[in-house]
Amino acid sequence: MFHIDPKSQTPLYLQLYRQLKNEINTHYKIGEKLPSIRALSVQYNLSKTTVQSAYSQLYAEGYIESRPKRGYFVSAHHFEDFKASTTQETKPQKSLTYRYDFFPAQLTKESFPLKIWKRIFHKAIDESVDFGAYHDGKGDVLLREEICRYLRASRGVNCRAEQIVVCSGFSDAMGLVAKLLRERYQHFGMESPGYHVARRVFEEYGYEVEKIAVGKEGLEVKALASSTAQIVYITPSHQYPTGVSMPISRRLELLSFIAKTGGLILEDDYDSELSYANRPIPSLQGLDYHDRVVYLGTFAKALSPALRVAYMVLPEHLLPCFDASYDAHFPRVSLTTQKTLALFLKEGHWDRHLRKIRTLNHKKHDLMLKTLQKSLKSSMKVLSKGGGLAILIYPTVKFDFEKLKTLAEQKGIKIYFAKERCGGEFEAIRMGFGGFGLDEIQEAVEAFSEIWWESCLL
Amino acid sequence: MFHIDPKSQTPLYLQLYRQLKNEINTHYKIGEKLPSIRALSVQYNLSKTTVQSAYSQLYAEGYIESRPKRGYFVSAHHFEDFKASTTQETKPQKSLTYRYDFFPAQLTKESFPLKIWKRIFHKAIDESVDFGAYHDGKGDVLLREEICRYLRASRGVNCRAEQIVVCSGFSDAMGLVAKLLRERYQHFGMESPGYHVARRVFEEYGYEVEKIAVGKEGLEVKALASSTAQIVYITPSHQYPTGVSMPISRRLELLSFIAKTGGLILEDDYDSELSYANRPIPSLQGLDYHDRVVYLGTFAKALSPALRVAYMVLPEHLLPCFDASYDAHFPRVSLTTQKTLALFLKEGHWDRHLRKIRTLNHKKHDLMLKTLQKSLKSSMKVLSKGGGLAILIYPTVKFDFEKLKTLAEQKGIKIYFAKERCGGEFEAIRMGFGGFGLDEIQEAVEAFSEIWWESCLL
Repeated sequence: MFHIDPKSQTPLYLQLYRQLKNEINTHYKIGEKLPSIRALSVQYNLSKTTVQSAYSQLYAEGYIESRPKRGYFVSAHHFEDFKASTTQETKPQKSLTYRYDFFPAQLTKESFPLKIWKRIFHKAIDESVDFGAYHDGKGDVLLREEICRYLRASRGVNCRAEQIVVCSGFSDAMGLVAKLLRERYQHFGMESPGYHVARRVFEEYGYEVEKIAVGKEGLEVKALASSTAQIVYITPSHQYPTGVSMPISRRLELLSFIAKTGGLILEDDYDSELSYANRPIPSLQGLDYHDRVVYLGTFAKALSPALRVAYMVLPEHLLPCFDASYDAHFPRVSLTTQKTLALFLKEGHWDRHLRKIRTLNHKKHDLMLKTLQKSLKSSMKVLSKGGGLAILIYPTVKFDFEKLKTLAEQKGIKIYFAKERCGGEFEAIRMGFGGFGLDEIQEAVEAFSEIWWESCLL
Repeated sequence: MFHIDPKSQTPLYLQLYRQLKNEINTHYKIGEKLPSIRALSVQYNLSKTTVQSAYSQLYAEGYIESRPKRGYFVSAHHFEDFKASTTQETKPQKSLTYRYDFFPAQLTKESFPLKIWKRIFHKAIDESVDFGAYHDGKGDVLLREEICRYLRASRGVNCRAEQIVVCSGFSDAMGLVAKLLRERYQHFGMESPGYHVARRVFEEYGYEVEKIAVGKEGLEVKALASSTAQIVYITPSHQYPTGVSMPISRRLELLSFIAKTGGLILEDDYDSELSYANRPIPSLQGLDYHDRVVYLGTFAKALSPALRVAYMVLPEHLLPCFDASYDAHFPRVSLTTQKTLALFLKEGHWDRHLRKIRTLNHKKHDLMLKTLQKSLKSSMKVLSKGGGLAILIYPTVKFDFEKLKTLAEQKGIKIYFAKERCGGEFEAIRMGFGGFGLDEIQEAVEAFSEIWWESCLL
């Protein structure tokens, strides 16, 4: 079945590997046994090393797994991934342009203050900036001072600029925290349901991850107390994905518990700027008098996810250790972006932009809510509203989700399920409104409404 | 000796912790035993939990260590760091402005093409860029295509744009590689002497790190073969820190060895653009026909370390796995920087800049070498020259290094020892010339020469 050409310039093992891979992708089933190394080496007159090399490569790529004394089998775990990716490679995925994309963490292109950004870029990047040098690994000091000022005034965060580290996005910040803490703590508590990226980053650094239940008031402190978690990741402003806002009583309970255990809270305040129902609740960090909170924020949700700027506020007691690490020597974000953003904040553009983007997205939110209620009526319940860039809904009637997905693809509608990003624990459809213009929402919801009703099993 | 006030608003454990910390910093010696928890709780009428909390905090911060059944002791490992950092906190470090800074990886401010960069920024960031959206986690496709073109033409790298990942600096790239590979490999081989950041990143991801000797032709393949290393990090163009360039025979030997074992080579080509003695040797990756090389490069050494842009070229077989990871969804560098850099390359500015910077640094290199030889005469031997941004020297006579360091600080001269950044294995003084203007080199070397001769034990 294989054609091995000893005269080819391609090494024998590579020829065999390629053909085996192809065979696996096209004919083998998951769990199916592959021929033994001995059998192949005899059949094709190859050395055992050659066959072993081909198998090692397949093993390294996750196609096959080895079972002691039994041989090699097609791997269940990686198979689907690789199959999909392989198909993608040979036949580049058609870039589907959806008619309506309900992506729940998007802003419209027009909401970025492009003109201002271009203008202040020149001002920010003046002759005084030294592009020949390495700069402060915590971030440009002007930017840190501006972030500090903003956090103190708008989020009630209790901090100095020295505590702030400018990072290249949320997962970069979480990676730094995970690295910094892992000699002290091994057990990571994760909101359940919760944001999968937070979990993955800590898993990657070898933490034991335990799920902590989220109730109607956010993270359950009792569940935390009965877990092994020493540090806990939470989204108290606007819980991801349920949208719950943690009330002050629960915040104090959590802080008091953590102060007693000597653990740490990682407060992810990602959606704090986009609260429409009430005034935003100040940060939990601001209530902490025991130096027990790492505060994380981002410019992705209210300014632009394409700038890749997030930040964290380290508790004082972690500063010496961070400052002694090599991470404190390499900036994580281009100095041009940092300098421009610093000036953007300093000149008051950020505050103005926030007011504008909040008003705009408040309108979009209300319009989407109204249109959803009008179109889907009592077949839908609203699980979360009033903040962020999405409204979460769920059917109240019997529903064919597979049909909804199929119809959505057919009609060019991109829809998002909460469970895809929080480990399958929470059922909701996330109706993002941030990526639509105000004038596009009604039409988008109506298109969605059509496929929704077709998927209802009435 | 401690003053614990039960009526204070500050929690008891925090009062105790602070005073203990102060005590450790001022009176304790490394390895000295602290009072037992029981003793302190009796003496100050505190609960054991309170004392335990204070000790836990000190432990978490690395001040003390616990020895089973014996108690708590002042920690040797972290003590110095923390002592230094604590001092630093209360008394902010005076920002020393050195008269002469021989930093070995710096460029002059003037060498950055600021005018061009500002001009093309506006062109690059036009209305077509969507700042409201998340973008390709591997990097902007135009930038990847331009990097690909450059690497193929100038470094002989065999790649397609799909293999390229744009990263936020070298350590970011190494972190991605470490994460990507760790389910397949556990043993990391490290050049010795070698670049400490490479080692640390892999250690952080839990690899077993083994040192592999570097000889006159670079990494010793025999040493690699007798080690447990499955993957190996090398700097074949310009070995860090020795400056050795690996000859073709050794490259082929290494590639053939790795192809046999199914391991991987991480080729860090950081200084490749700055070769003055010969034409740059093409990359090792380009010689590889077994898909066994991860190639890493950076814009830090020839364009600007402040932009924070590095890149890697993944072997084909690792693409499916990387593409399936969440890292493939979050860009690591601001889109503004990526777009500007893409245009900088596309319009030919990068090639022109390279020629200019290579010529300029070649001149600086030659001038520094000449001035060093003239000033230090036979008291010095040159360990490495002909590339990069530094010349490596070492005394041939009996030498008082401590005196040199002291004098340097006194005279405002910042000097760099190779062993600080490669684990103490390699003795050399790294005389960076990149940060000086051509007209400053002679003066700087003469100032250095003065303190050098004072430190010679003739």
